[in-house]
Amino acid sequence: MDIQPSLYPLTEFTSGQDPWQAAFAAHAHDLQPSEIRALFAVASRPEVVSLAGGMPYVAALNMDHVAEAVAMMLRDRGLVALQYGAGQGHPELREQILDVMTPHGIRAGLDDVVVTAGSQLALDLVIRVMCDRGDVILTESPSYVGALGVFKAAGLDVVHVPMDEQGLRPDALAETIAQVRAQGRTPKLLYTIPSYHNPGGVTQGPQRRHEVLAAARSAGVLIVEDDPYGLLGFDGIVPRALHADDPEGVVYLGSFSKTIAAGVRLGWAVAPPSLREKLVMAAEAATLCPSNFTQLTISTLLSTRPFFDQVAKFRDVYRERRDVLLEEMAHSFPEGTSWTTPIGGFYSWVTLPEGIDSTVMLARALDALVAYVPGTGFYADEQGRSELRLSYCYPEPDRVREGVRRLAGVLNNEIAFRDSGRLLETR
Amino acid sequence: MDIQPSLYPLTEFTSGQDPWQAAFAAHAHDLQPSEIRALFAVASRPEVVSLAGGMPYVAALNMDHVAEAVAMMLRDRGLVALQYGAGQGHPELREQILDVMTPHGIRAGLDDVVVTAGSQLALDLVIRVMCDRGDVILTESPSYVGALGVFKAAGLDVVHVPMDEQGLRPDALAETIAQVRAQGRTPKLLYTIPSYHNPGGVTQGPQRRHEVLAAARSAGVLIVEDDPYGLLGFDGIVPRALHADDPEGVVYLGSFSKTIAAGVRLGWAVAPPSLREKLVMAAEAATLCPSNFTQLTISTLLSTRPFFDQVAKFRDVYRERRDVLLEEMAHSFPEGTSWTTPIGGFYSWVTLPEGIDSTVMLARALDALVAYVPGTGFYADEQGRSELRLSYCYPEPDRVREGVRRLAGVLNNEIAFRDSGRLLETR
Repeated sequence: MDIQPSLYPLTEFTSGQDPWQAAFAAHAHDLQPSEIRALFAVASRPEVVSLAGGMPYVAALNMDHVAEAVAMMLRDRGLVALQYGAGQGHPELREQILDVMTPHGIRAGLDDVVVTAGSQLALDLVIRVMCDRGDVILTESPSYVGALGVFKAAGLDVVHVPMDEQGLRPDALAETIAQVRAQGRTPKLLYTIPSYHNPGGVTQGPQRRHEVLAAARSAGVLIVEDDPYGLLGFDGIVPRALHADDPEGVVYLGSFSKTIAAGVRLGWAVAPPSLREKLVMAAEAATLCPSNFTQLTISTLLSTRPFFDQVAKFRDVYRERRDVLLEEMAHSFPEGTSWTTPIGGFYSWVTLPEGIDSTVMLARALDALVAYVPGTGFYADEQGRSELRLSYCYPEPDRVREGVRRLAGVLNNEIAFRDSGRLLETR
Repeated sequence: MDIQPSLYPLTEFTSGQDPWQAAFAAHAHDLQPSEIRALFAVASRPEVVSLAGGMPYVAALNMDHVAEAVAMMLRDRGLVALQYGAGQGHPELREQILDVMTPHGIRAGLDDVVVTAGSQLALDLVIRVMCDRGDVILTESPSYVGALGVFKAAGLDVVHVPMDEQGLRPDALAETIAQVRAQGRTPKLLYTIPSYHNPGGVTQGPQRRHEVLAAARSAGVLIVEDDPYGLLGFDGIVPRALHADDPEGVVYLGSFSKTIAAGVRLGWAVAPPSLREKLVMAAEAATLCPSNFTQLTISTLLSTRPFFDQVAKFRDVYRERRDVLLEEMAHSFPEGTSWTTPIGGFYSWVTLPEGIDSTVMLARALDALVAYVPGTGFYADEQGRSELRLSYCYPEPDRVREGVRRLAGVLNNEIAFRDSGRLLETR
């Protein structure tokens, strides 16, 4: 194919600055590269044990089964898979999603489910429909870095609510709502991860869930319940979703990223009717429709392989790694270090000994060939320097152990360094 | 798996109205169901010849090849395909996209390409980075309905610029920019489809492109060039992209929807450096990353099958249908009807005889088992009742012919009805 020559060249491409920065939207200046992004380039080097990223262990999938299922699906229904589809998602997959949510106690209809290109996009669309720039949003302290990214891009004002070993504290929630109201502002919604919290590693029990629901309901605050890990409880019990007990007060966000594969980018929302209608329209404006190809791939896997057996396999993989992490932290970490004990999911949240800074320590940890995410990534404000997140989901168990040992060595050096400084101060 | 009973049920799910409507974002009320959406439910009935939707004829793909390629890709690189990936897109696919853009005269580097879950999302992200609510955006009159949906969801003020048989009129563009400025407002960007316009069916020639570029450049207005059909010119010539002659002044949007498959939802943007950096961050906030699974699927198809041969096959399919459409319109359509003559792409834009209303006529057309899209869908204002869009891309040639015949019958009835009304008026 010939390339038409330019008859009228105007400019050559240069890689320097361009003149459009001044024309950006007001909120575009809030979009700044994160320190975590820079970290991942280093952490992905094979010699580094990465306890940083929350990547699912997709090697636990039978790849031949996946390949066969996709090939079969394309031969049977390729004309549908490769064509535009419904903005709300393929009805067959939405029907199957109802079954996937049954263990969570969620009773919903086909029309209540909105499929999106990953649950991150579902959250983004909920925020687009519900929030104006400057609105107040409540979330745990700390909270999921990706959700904070959505809130920041939308120009929202994030107010953190403290957690304890059972997650979000309902008393603190009620108190925070009252404080925000006292400032003459209205909290638009509460974003929460009740099960196997990212990054907190904690889980709301049944009584706690009831109290959180009651506090939000009595204050008239909508809850967005993010539940990517709900099926990955190590005792095999699936916590009852907040949505199950208050479908009118809770938007439920689900995902196949941790139960099948993150690379297909498929999630969903279940929302109260008027919000769901707007969500579908916002989704159509943003993407026309989710991919029929990925939807029918997941649908075929769901109909040809026992889904909950696959989930159990993942659960066993993660439980073993969680056990190794906890055992080795208890064995190696210096006194003054504390951590949460996850009963499911991917993460433990570590609080460092007094005077140790997780952001300062990171470069030395990478030198020692171990990576983590500093606590600062999980707060919208300046908190988090004395904390960090460890993920045990991706490395093999012996690598998890080795990573904890390396980090323990770094921590011990930091403490020695801290104490030598104190020694100098007292001289 | 047992379902936990609710210890503390708060509400039962009801399908009635919910209390959240009052809490919606200000712009959420702009999200309204479109008449086109309602139309598609009817138009998809098999007895209806649909000249409405712009669905690619994916049956022209060899489905066995696609199935084999995906299965091979999963067996070779399943662990990558099913995992999270880079926010900007997989480097291998971005490299191949550079080759796909070569016939358009675009010279760009790997870092300039941002892959998104469909080019609709790329447009949405450009708008998010560039535009605040109430900003003025310029576009052809008429313009692509999906783009208008993005602009509406973002609360933008769309100003239409007239076209002629060569597309966007540069004199009208300069004049419109001056008018907007005279109102004390700044047009933020020009959204244009230079090649095989949707819905206009017209194409900017080389001199016209130069004039459009010059007008936008001298006014300091960024151009967003949407080019899903650029490779589908019936004479086999690929128009030189606007971006090729002004890479600093033009954001280029590309798509695999019409050259491989719409169902994978993969598109991309090539943008000036500072804008591209913000685009990547906005994309990561919205979706974390595009699907590695769909990206490696397309990448494998590109590396194992001759892409431009596949494009030529699609081109032959659409040329034959275009020929049938034009021939049958010339043969059957009543006097006073006029239409554009597409030299590529999917659409012809039809102007109806005086006094015939395409929105009123639609119900009667559906009764006659033929569907089209009324012109009103392609304007942000109240224009379009005397126009409609016909798509020849999806139905087989004999169905295209039958559809035009049916529509001609409807038109003749409308004219008779109109004239009987006039007869009554003059009595």
